[in-house]
Amino acid sequence: MKIALIGGTGDIGEGLALRWGLETTHEILVGSRTREKADERAREYAERLESAGRKGKPDMVGLANEDAAREGDIVVLCVEAGYVVPAVRSLLGILHQDQIVVSPAVPMARRGKFFFYAPPPEGSLAMQIAGVLPEQMPLVSALHTVPAHKLADLDTRLDQDVVCLGGNEDAKQTVMGLIAEIAGLRPLDGGPLSASSLVESITPLLINLAIVNKRKNLAIKFV
Amino acid sequence: MKIALIGGTGDIGEGLALRWGLETTHEILVGSRTREKADERAREYAERLESAGRKGKPDMVGLANEDAAREGDIVVLCVEAGYVVPAVRSLLGILHQDQIVVSPAVPMARRGKFFFYAPPPEGSLAMQIAGVLPEQMPLVSALHTVPAHKLADLDTRLDQDVVCLGGNEDAKQTVMGLIAEIAGLRPLDGGPLSASSLVESITPLLINLAIVNKRKNLAIKFV
Repeated sequence: MKIALIGGTGDIGEGLALRWGLETTHEILVGSRTREKADERAREYAERLESAGRKGKPDMVGLANEDAAREGDIVVLCVEAGYVVPAVRSLLGILHQDQIVVSPAVPMARRGKFFFYAPPPEGSLAMQIAGVLPEQMPLVSALHTVPAHKLADLDTRLDQDVVCLGGNEDAKQTVMGLIAEIAGLRPLDGGPLSASSLVESITPLLINLAIVNKRKNLAIKFV
Repeated sequence: MKIALIGGTGDIGEGLALRWGLETTHEILVGSRTREKADERAREYAERLESAGRKGKPDMVGLANEDAAREGDIVVLCVEAGYVVPAVRSLLGILHQDQIVVSPAVPMARRGKFFFYAPPPEGSLAMQIAGVLPEQMPLVSALHTVPAHKLADLDTRLDQDVVCLGGNEDAKQTVMGLIAEIAGLRPLDGGPLSASSLVESITPLLINLAIVNKRKNLAIKFV
């Protein structure tokens, strides 16, 4: 499968590229604003995968975001929350209904020392994106609570749950399958896209818990 | 310490009465609308604690909610979300600033098969309660994600985290200490009361995950 990481040079894009690159044979399309930057980072990721002991060259290539979006079977919006909707708008003529869009970003605001969930009027970022995409476009909200730095540190063993939400059951199952291919991530079906706020809002909580309790990169498990 | 459970005959009240009754020597004041009902339930809880192997009689008494609220050092609002604010209003002449109020309830709405967080305009139930209580009254938001049935089933070993929020640090530490006395519950400081929505909103997610994944009584751990 071709996994396009829009903004794949950022924190969460890096982590996903490295984990899927290490543990699967999927083709990873690292997207960035310019092909040059994407290419440079894709090569760097590939080197890190070889150092981490990956057998054989990973199937990884750097592309301009638009080209990654065109070619991916899965298109993960690894863009900071504030830039996700503009990014989706800029890809509207490119994305097509045979693809699956994945939304991992979380809109947050900081007040003083603490972080708060700051959803758009649609109730969640995922619902806002759904309003921008063509109606039939499969969209899955997932991967919000996976700490990017832990994901990108291939020496760290993961052991956490990843809630996936969406109205297109096939698309959701496909994304859950991809997540399950990363060792230590357990995908869980969280229901419809309209419940996405319940999961997006966990991210600022994880950050606050980390701040108060002097812990880093907290994630979540359901027990 | 005297722990008053307002609505202590309900699900979460039952669980807390049994766990604190089993594992601590705190005096448990089981509150209900009538003293008769409270008394009957308190006796039933005491019998269950003896069957569960508690050594010696638990310090447990049934009282009308008003009397429990007057006497408790800690006053836990074990009332369904929709009745919490009326309950607090009815106790306004009774509660005093040497006490700590604890809010575990979560306002939810059901749409179709799934549950959603339905906070009041104040942003969370805890913030709404804070607006009703006298300004200096210590209020801690906690215990939202503890499944009541698992708590009340003394054969079940617990192993979960409990996020506690509030602006009065002493009060928060006191409540965290009480929670830590229940084996298998790990209290975590989640920051200020204004972040309470981030924790309250986990409860409908736990219910949805339970529905979709055919699991019961899910709780949360931060890893």
